[in-house]
Amino acid sequence: MLDTSSPQVRALLPLLYVAWADGVLTPSEAETLRVQVQDQNWIDGDVREEVCGYLDPQSPPTATQYFRWIRALKQAAQESSVRTRCSLAELGVAMAKVGENGTALSDASRRALEDIEASLGVDGEEVIGDLLGERPTPEVPTPPTEVPFDRDALTAVLDGRHADLRNRIRTLLRDPVFEYRDDLPTSAYRDQVLRWCRLLADQGLGALGYPEEYGGEDDMERFVVTFEMLAYHDLSMVIKFGVQFGLFGGSIHRLGTERHHEQYLERAGTLELPGCFAMTEYGHGSNVRDLETTARYDPKAEQFVINTPHDAARKEWIGNAAAHGRMATVFAQLHTEGEAHGVHAFLVPIRKADGTPQPRVRIEDCGEKMGLNGVDNGRLWFDHVRIPRENMLDRHASVAPDGTYESPIPSDGKRFFTMLSTLVGGRISVARAGLSAAKSGLTIAVRYGNRRRQFGPKDEPEVPLLHYRTHKRRLLPRLATTYALHFALDDLTRRFAAKGTDGTLETVEAEANALKVYATWHTTDTLQEAREACGGQGYLAENRIAALKADTDVFTTFEGDNTVLMLQVAKGLLSDFQREFRDMNLLGMARFVAGEVATRMTELNPVVTRKTDPEHLRSVDFQRSAFEYRADHMLQSAGQRLQRRIEEQDMAPFEAFVDVQDHLVQLAHAEAERVVLNRFVDAIGTIEDEPLADTLATLRALFALSRIEDDLDWFLEANYIESTKSKAIRGEVNALCDELRPQAEALVDAFAIPDACLAAPIATEKET
Amino acid sequence: MLDTSSPQVRALLPLLYVAWADGVLTPSEAETLRVQVQDQNWIDGDVREEVCGYLDPQSPPTATQYFRWIRALKQAAQESSVRTRCSLAELGVAMAKVGENGTALSDASRRALEDIEASLGVDGEEVIGDLLGERPTPEVPTPPTEVPFDRDALTAVLDGRHADLRNRIRTLLRDPVFEYRDDLPTSAYRDQVLRWCRLLADQGLGALGYPEEYGGEDDMERFVVTFEMLAYHDLSMVIKFGVQFGLFGGSIHRLGTERHHEQYLERAGTLELPGCFAMTEYGHGSNVRDLETTARYDPKAEQFVINTPHDAARKEWIGNAAAHGRMATVFAQLHTEGEAHGVHAFLVPIRKADGTPQPRVRIEDCGEKMGLNGVDNGRLWFDHVRIPRENMLDRHASVAPDGTYESPIPSDGKRFFTMLSTLVGGRISVARAGLSAAKSGLTIAVRYGNRRRQFGPKDEPEVPLLHYRTHKRRLLPRLATTYALHFALDDLTRRFAAKGTDGTLETVEAEANALKVYATWHTTDTLQEAREACGGQGYLAENRIAALKADTDVFTTFEGDNTVLMLQVAKGLLSDFQREFRDMNLLGMARFVAGEVATRMTELNPVVTRKTDPEHLRSVDFQRSAFEYRADHMLQSAGQRLQRRIEEQDMAPFEAFVDVQDHLVQLAHAEAERVVLNRFVDAIGTIEDEPLADTLATLRALFALSRIEDDLDWFLEANYIESTKSKAIRGEVNALCDELRPQAEALVDAFAIPDACLAAPIATEKET
Repeated sequence: MLDTSSPQVRALLPLLYVAWADGVLTPSEAETLRVQVQDQNWIDGDVREEVCGYLDPQSPPTATQYFRWIRALKQAAQESSVRTRCSLAELGVAMAKVGENGTALSDASRRALEDIEASLGVDGEEVIGDLLGERPTPEVPTPPTEVPFDRDALTAVLDGRHADLRNRIRTLLRDPVFEYRDDLPTSAYRDQVLRWCRLLADQGLGALGYPEEYGGEDDMERFVVTFEMLAYHDLSMVIKFGVQFGLFGGSIHRLGTERHHEQYLERAGTLELPGCFAMTEYGHGSNVRDLETTARYDPKAEQFVINTPHDAARKEWIGNAAAHGRMATVFAQLHTEGEAHGVHAFLVPIRKADGTPQPRVRIEDCGEKMGLNGVDNGRLWFDHVRIPRENMLDRHASVAPDGTYESPIPSDGKRFFTMLSTLVGGRISVARAGLSAAKSGLTIAVRYGNRRRQFGPKDEPEVPLLHYRTHKRRLLPRLATTYALHFALDDLTRRFAAKGTDGTLETVEAEANALKVYATWHTTDTLQEAREACGGQGYLAENRIAALKADTDVFTTFEGDNTVLMLQVAKGLLSDFQREFRDMNLLGMARFVAGEVATRMTELNPVVTRKTDPEHLRSVDFQRSAFEYRADHMLQSAGQRLQRRIEEQDMAPFEAFVDVQDHLVQLAHAEAERVVLNRFVDAIGTIEDEPLADTLATLRALFALSRIEDDLDWFLEANYIESTKSKAIRGEVNALCDELRPQAEALVDAFAIPDACLAAPIATEKET
Repeated sequence: MLDTSSPQVRALLPLLYVAWADGVLTPSEAETLRVQVQDQNWIDGDVREEVCGYLDPQSPPTATQYFRWIRALKQAAQESSVRTRCSLAELGVAMAKVGENGTALSDASRRALEDIEASLGVDGEEVIGDLLGERPTPEVPTPPTEVPFDRDALTAVLDGRHADLRNRIRTLLRDPVFEYRDDLPTSAYRDQVLRWCRLLADQGLGALGYPEEYGGEDDMERFVVTFEMLAYHDLSMVIKFGVQFGLFGGSIHRLGTERHHEQYLERAGTLELPGCFAMTEYGHGSNVRDLETTARYDPKAEQFVINTPHDAARKEWIGNAAAHGRMATVFAQLHTEGEAHGVHAFLVPIRKADGTPQPRVRIEDCGEKMGLNGVDNGRLWFDHVRIPRENMLDRHASVAPDGTYESPIPSDGKRFFTMLSTLVGGRISVARAGLSAAKSGLTIAVRYGNRRRQFGPKDEPEVPLLHYRTHKRRLLPRLATTYALHFALDDLTRRFAAKGTDGTLETVEAEANALKVYATWHTTDTLQEAREACGGQGYLAENRIAALKADTDVFTTFEGDNTVLMLQVAKGLLSDFQREFRDMNLLGMARFVAGEVATRMTELNPVVTRKTDPEHLRSVDFQRSAFEYRADHMLQSAGQRLQRRIEEQDMAPFEAFVDVQDHLVQLAHAEAERVVLNRFVDAIGTIEDEPLADTLATLRALFALSRIEDDLDWFLEANYIESTKSKAIRGEVNALCDELRPQAEALVDAFAIPDACLAAPIATEKET
């Protein structure tokens, strides 16, 4: 039995332990070790003999003997100052030193031990770490960086032609005055947000969309881009910014005429005149057409009388109303000469200069909300409030002094929708702000996922969360969708802004509705996933996701409830579809049907429905065809279902619509994805930097395939693909996630969100 | 031309207007009206003649004439005090009165008008409402109540054998001291929650699970039911309750021995000794086995030295630590006699009686969180804190005075999992508390959906949100799942409690993990949907959903991260599966394969895969077979995938597991649904009240079919069903939603959540 109390034996123990660690000692290993041990002149001969006795491959130590060695090793390691990660030689030296008869080995002896260790050909440090019961610390703490593209070039592509503005806002948000706070009580928070908005106005950012003569640049695109960038910061700030400059100022700009512009627009843009956009009522939110506030014209006084007929007709949720607003654009049912003309907008003073409410105006605070508590949402009641005739915003309709109603738009419906189209800019802005929040959430979660380690292979360092398939699937498809939406919304903004104030918005309106819905639901879903992906840390206020989630939760509701908007998108598609048929001559119809059949022929070719090679699955062609086919097919089938119910089953049109709502929502969803994919493909097509275009194409493939995967039931049900193909698609999504994982960090870094905005320790700290 | 300035003409105008409202006057209508008008002696003869001239079916009034009448009617209605909803006669009387030559009609004249109106056979009020440009207020403001079962009987079934306890807690929560508050600053909120917990302790509720000699009833089931019921109230309160009595007290009860029980259990149950459960560390949350706090035994002093070796090893998220806890059950790596024995639990005093930290204990507040701010979560650092040897909770392992380690459980792994199984009760409790929050959210959203009206058929009252297919689909399948989970969790709790403190928990542990995950994700999803279904109102703090959502969001993370638990469930199934094969003799194997084949034969019979009749789809047989088949099939395929990777592709087992994680998560999900369905079916089987059993069976069908619908891609891909069947399933989900809608309100009322708990104006107000 080896005497483990002898310092010389102890010095060799680590080597003996390792030699037998896997239970096997090959003859040549044994031979090498024996020769080396015998060479150690500093060790007494009998000790050398004894040790060599334990280097016989044919007679391994018994379990009891081996356990004793381990125990001695652990004890000595504990008593000495040895580190968990040290070489076998170091441990040997340390072992010789401890205990009652401990000895310090000479330098020569130490070197001799090192030689033996080297000849063993094992990673001594790892073995020791294992022995001492602690996992070795990971060798490479930094996240993987196999990034084939230039990150700054990607940022430049994302920033597009407004890189100057975006960088300016990044710089601005780094200014200490914008330091992010999450601990202010509501009233202080509201004041903070107001101060921030004033600073932004001072920078000329509020008025960007207004004409130059009123301090602006007449550039709605830059206004929307500003909104998007500010949304990296406090969301209350961006919503207040939107209420003041986009909704209040925007309503004066787009619904008013020169008189209103001259009188109010500059003051709105500088925030000298804080205002509200008072459309929603408690009783009517989505159904704006039926709101109940009245504006009756009194020709004698040449005034409108604004009135809240009953409590449910109070204005509700009005941003800027509870504390700061002085004036409100009030939407009310216009009555003149005993006739009702539907909803129109009027400028109504609600507060005096001293901040108290105007006579006959009652204001109440909506109180605490799930989020956005920096915005002072309030309720407004009007008790026969009189305003001058000139306060009607009269671009689309006016009332003459004698009460005569005039409008360049003859149809009530058309006029109503023209007026509502002022909301289009708001919807695009909300979609982009939501997407910014999703980008923040993904940045935090991806960085955390690359740094946070938990579990791992037996006896190896724990691995980062983003190594796990489940974790990759949580974050990477959502990152791909975020990229897709970024380009889709950017293109939409450009086209929206190009319309100017006079162009008809119809063509972009439907797309704005579809993308607002798609982007805001994506935001809610992404932030939920990001929160869970960061575990308990995601739940702490200081890590930012809580606020991002709570603040954006209402994005799916305001500026148009998502479900209502989806149904509107679907109805729009159906009326286009019906029109297509109605206006069609025989030739057109024939073409249409032929085109239709051609699509089916191509798509449902059994070779294609079974094709599973990665090249095919990753191709734009397959993905685009799938999205187009789905949207077309759903449109036709929705039309057929409606027709069947109305014509064959004698349902009232309203009930028929209600009955097929589930299909309509699916259709709108398919349409949104079709649009997003097409815009993303177009955008990638313009990029010349090849590695960059390749990466974006990989993201595009992940976006498209993960969306198809999400809707596999439909594709399978429609026989557009077969089982083998659907399985291949799942596999390809995994493969794409694996491929993109090493680039994930660079892909979120490319958003270039200022650290000052993130303010999330888990996203900004170097190592956990 | 009718002289509309004459009071007599004006009195008749409403009737004339209505007569022609649909553009058609039938001969008999015309005759009746003419005779009645001619009978009106109070009207001048020439006026009567003139009016009758407009009652000729052959010569309707021109559009211009009719528009003048409308204008006159509207004007008069506006000038008079007439209500929107009044009879034609009332309007006639009012019309006669207004204007320059207005006259008050006699009572006789009024009665005469009423007779004419009656003979017209139309709903005058509706017509007037329509005319005056406002939608008529709905006739039936109360929600539909075609409920074929007795609501109280349903509550009795839900309450089960603990109705007494549940009712006691309902009564308790109605006490004004428990008034729900949403406006307290954090420190006041924490104190409030502590006071509430003390009141609950005074009621004996905290100790329910402890032995009788320490003030309890030795009844874990009643403890868990209490937890579930309290979760209707403030969630911070229930979590603090759980930390103190379930985790801290529970760890003493289940991990300690008599000495600890005598010394601490009663004081834990009365909250005389506020305590913490200090398991999680910053660096190790899910991976408990690798946590890094150490407890080294010093035999000379007969003490353990508790130490935090570095910052990431600090205890994190510890409930009750930031403000109130005096003692903590600390989980640490035990070292004695130079050997590491893995994680064990120790009682460590953390605060003195005066509330200041004990020497060498550092305490920090975790700060603001997304929710649960009434719970004082904190961080703990131990700097070589010495505790007596007796403070080790030594039910499963002990250290003798000389340092000898002893344990009745030889295997380290087994001992570790036995210790962790104390968490099972916590997991079940969290699942039930989450489900209570989902019930609260659904109660609020269903009530709002029945009262809130928006849009409607042209010229008809707006319809309640729950009339819409989209809205039904949002809420009703989730309501069905909530019912299913209620019964599944109730059964699980019963079986868990029956095990007592000594029984092995293995059999219920896997189910507890699966249902914890399923229930808490269901909660997150349901509350999100409920929030959106209540629109902006759902976003207001006073309507409660904000808090329910924020407070329960972390339920998917704590007491075991959901993804980690899912993987654990799947691994458990796989090892059972492997064991099944390993232990099987030839006969067993043959039986297994035969059974397997038999299943496939039955299920994939083309007649069945194409069967689409409602009776088949709604049958327990179909639903159960589908769930069983899916779980079995996924288990086999997961096993095959793993095997292929390890054996054929030479992957390391860890990497193979990572590679198939997406399948494992699917498998665990399928397993959870299989269990939930089976438990729900079993529970319904015991109900004798037929209408009740029928309703629950409808809910069961909706649960099962909506879950199948959600996973149609899998069923189609596996060829378990064909396209026609999948379409039929979608249709059947719609049909079930339509069927259950009139009962929805009774189904949420049956939860019998005290109004005092809901405290949500939109759920408790009678009419919006």
